[in-house]
Amino acid sequence: MAVALERPDILSLAAGFTDNESLPLEDVSSVVDEIAQEGLAGRSALQYGSNIGREGLRELVANRIEDSDTTKRGTLNREQLYISNGSQQALYLAVQTLCDPGDIILVEQPTYFVFLEILQGLGARPIGIPTTSESEIDLAGLESLLVEAERTGELERIKALYLVSYFANPSGSSVSEATKEGIGKILGGLSSTVAIIEDAAYREIYYEKPFSAKSCLALEPYQGAPVFYTSTLTKPYASGLKVGYAYCTEPLWLAAMLNVKGQQDFGTANFAQTIVERAVKKGYLDRHLNSLRSIYHAKMNTLHEALSGPLESLGWNWKAPEGGLYLWLNSPTGLRTDANSPFHEACIKQGVFYVPGDLCYPDSRICDRIRLSFGVLGEEDLREAARRFVAAAMAMTEPARG
Amino acid sequence: MAVALERPDILSLAAGFTDNESLPLEDVSSVVDEIAQEGLAGRSALQYGSNIGREGLRELVANRIEDSDTTKRGTLNREQLYISNGSQQALYLAVQTLCDPGDIILVEQPTYFVFLEILQGLGARPIGIPTTSESEIDLAGLESLLVEAERTGELERIKALYLVSYFANPSGSSVSEATKEGIGKILGGLSSTVAIIEDAAYREIYYEKPFSAKSCLALEPYQGAPVFYTSTLTKPYASGLKVGYAYCTEPLWLAAMLNVKGQQDFGTANFAQTIVERAVKKGYLDRHLNSLRSIYHAKMNTLHEALSGPLESLGWNWKAPEGGLYLWLNSPTGLRTDANSPFHEACIKQGVFYVPGDLCYPDSRICDRIRLSFGVLGEEDLREAARRFVAAAMAMTEPARG
Repeated sequence: MAVALERPDILSLAAGFTDNESLPLEDVSSVVDEIAQEGLAGRSALQYGSNIGREGLRELVANRIEDSDTTKRGTLNREQLYISNGSQQALYLAVQTLCDPGDIILVEQPTYFVFLEILQGLGARPIGIPTTSESEIDLAGLESLLVEAERTGELERIKALYLVSYFANPSGSSVSEATKEGIGKILGGLSSTVAIIEDAAYREIYYEKPFSAKSCLALEPYQGAPVFYTSTLTKPYASGLKVGYAYCTEPLWLAAMLNVKGQQDFGTANFAQTIVERAVKKGYLDRHLNSLRSIYHAKMNTLHEALSGPLESLGWNWKAPEGGLYLWLNSPTGLRTDANSPFHEACIKQGVFYVPGDLCYPDSRICDRIRLSFGVLGEEDLREAARRFVAAAMAMTEPARG
Repeated sequence: MAVALERPDILSLAAGFTDNESLPLEDVSSVVDEIAQEGLAGRSALQYGSNIGREGLRELVANRIEDSDTTKRGTLNREQLYISNGSQQALYLAVQTLCDPGDIILVEQPTYFVFLEILQGLGARPIGIPTTSESEIDLAGLESLLVEAERTGELERIKALYLVSYFANPSGSSVSEATKEGIGKILGGLSSTVAIIEDAAYREIYYEKPFSAKSCLALEPYQGAPVFYTSTLTKPYASGLKVGYAYCTEPLWLAAMLNVKGQQDFGTANFAQTIVERAVKKGYLDRHLNSLRSIYHAKMNTLHEALSGPLESLGWNWKAPEGGLYLWLNSPTGLRTDANSPFHEACIKQGVFYVPGDLCYPDSRICDRIRLSFGVLGEEDLREAARRFVAAAMAMTEPARG
C-alpha cells in the first residue's frame, strides 16, 4: 500500500479531499487584503485568540445552526459553542472527556472510520447499532440491545450514541427526523444517561435541497438530554483553513472539553478564524456552497454513471446519494474488498485506490463494501478512475482466459 | 478573578500574548497575494495537507535547528520532524503517548504552568527537580532523587524529564550546556529509560545574542537516547497562525504521536503552514525576529526599570533576563502572592494582573513568586502597570495609616 501511494500514476478514490479547482483563493485573498488595510485592528488577527474561539464567529455559527433547524435566532446559548481545529478535534475532545477506557459508544454500521480510530486510540469500545434490511437504524433492535445491556449491567458503560446524520461518510445516507426522535425516546427511557454525538459535517453539502431532518438539538425528545453537535465551516469551503465547531448542551461535559482544548492548543488559530468569520459575514461561504453543490453533484453523477452500466451487470449495487462526497458500493456477494483481498490488489494494479469498507464497521466483519470519494478528482480523472475500477471488477468476475 | 477580567481598565501583566503593534500583517498579506497569483498551484494552499506537515516547511525547520546547534545541515532526519498546532499541541502529544496515569515526569522548579495542567489532565504526576541556591538544576540532587526512585522501585514510572531550556517561561533563565550534559549522563546511567522533553519555545527570542547551549539533540550524552525537542515558528512572529513543530529521536514514540495527531486533526491547517513556509523562505521571519528582539528588550527594560527602584527597596528581587517575555519576581520573605493572598487582591484593586508563581511549582508550596509578562502591553501601559504593581506592594508593606 505504501508502495502504491508513491506511484504518481495512481488515481485515488480513497482520499476524502475536497475539490481543488474551486478552492476560494480569491475570497481568502480579498479578505486578507481587507484585514491588511485596517491597521492595528486588522493586525490583531495575527495575535493569539481565546480558547473558546472568536465571539463573532460563534454568533454566526449559532445563527447558522438555528436557521438550518428553523428555530428562532438566539435559542442556542453562544457560550456553549466552541471553535475547533476542524470537527475532527471536536469529536476527539468529546470522546476523550466522556469515556474512560472500556466505555462504549454505539455507532452506525457503517460509520466514519476515523471515529473508530479515535475510540481505539482512547481505549473506548464501539458497538454497532442494529440495521434494518434497508440499511437504516433498527429502532427495535437498538432498544433490545439497550435492554440487554441494562440486564447485564453493561448499560452504565454505554456513554453515547454516535450519529453521522447528513449525507454520511461513508454511506451517503441521512438519518430521518422520525428515526432521530425514536432514538431520543429510547435513550430518554433508560436508567442511565447515554449522550448523543451528532456529526453533521456534510449537512451543508446537499446537491439540490437540504435534508429535511432537524438536528437533535432542535428535537423534542432531546430537550434536557446531553447533546453534542459538531460540524465544519471549511470542509465545504477551504479545507486548508481547518475551522470546525461544536455545540454541547451539557455544561460539565463542555467545560471538560474546553479544559482539554486549553491544554492541547489554547484555541484554534485566530487568523484562520478571522478569515472564516469574514467569509461567512460577507456571504462568501454561502455563495461558494451554491456553486460547490453543483460541482459535487456533477462529479457524483459522473462517477455514478461511469460505474452503473458495467458494475450493475456484475451484481454490484449502491444508491446515488443526494449530498456528500461518497459512493458506498456493495460488491457482488462473496467478493471480498478488504485491504488483503485480490480485488484490492487488482485495483492497485489497475492504478486506482479506494477505502475498504470493513474499516467502517466496528467489528470489521463486513468485507464486501467500498467507499469511493469523488471530491478531489476532476471529471476526466473520475472517468479514468472508474474505467480502472471496472476493469478490476471485471477481472475478478470473468474466468481467466488463456 | 472573573469579575476582574471583565474590568476594561485592568492592565494585564499575566497573559503571555505577543507584541501587537509589530505583528507582521504586511508580510502575511504579501505572501497571500503571491499565493493568489499562482492559480491552481496557489489554490492548493487551501486544500487539506498531510498529517506530518508540509515537506518544504519541515526541511526549513530542520535546517533552522541544525544552524542553531551548529551541526551540519542534513544531520536531522526530516521524517522525524512534524508540524503541530503550536508547540503546545506537540507537548500534549508527547505526554499523552508517553505516560500512563500515575507515571511521572520530572520538572524544573519553577516550570511552565500549562505543562503542569497537561500532566494533571492526563493523570501523570510532576516531581520537581532539586534546585541549587542559585535557582539552577542541582545535578547531585537529581542523581540522589533518581537513585532513591531506583531503590523504591518508582524509577520505572519516571518517563521523562521536562526542560524549558531557553529564556524559560516563567523564570527567564536558560539551562547551560554543562547542565544539559550532566543530566544526559545521569539519565544514561539509569536502569530504565527516562526521555528528555526539551521545550525551546523561546530560543529565538534572545535580546542580544543566542544563548550559547546547543539543544539536547546535538549533545553527546543524548546520542541514542530518546529526545523530544519542540519549538514554535509563530510565537515570535504571528501567534495567530499557530504553527509549531517537534523532532523526536525515538521512532515508536514519534509514530504514536503522529497516530494520535491523525485522530485529533489529521494535520495542522495547511494554509497557515504555507504562509509560514514562505515567510521563512523569504527571510521575513528572520527580519521580523531582528526587530522583535529590540522591541522585547526595550519592553523588558521598561518594566524592569520601572519596578527596580521602588521594589528593591522593599526587599523584592529578580534578575533581568537576556531573552523571553517574562520577569520572575521573588517577593519579600513571607509575603504571599498566590491567588488567595491579600497582595493579589491589592493588585486587582489597583487594576493590574499577574500570574501567581505557585502555579508554576509541582506542589504549589512556593507562594512568594510572581510572573510578569511584558510581551503585549505598549511602553506606556507597561509603566502604568508597574506603577499600580508598586502601589500594591507598598500598601502591603507600609503600616496602615489613619
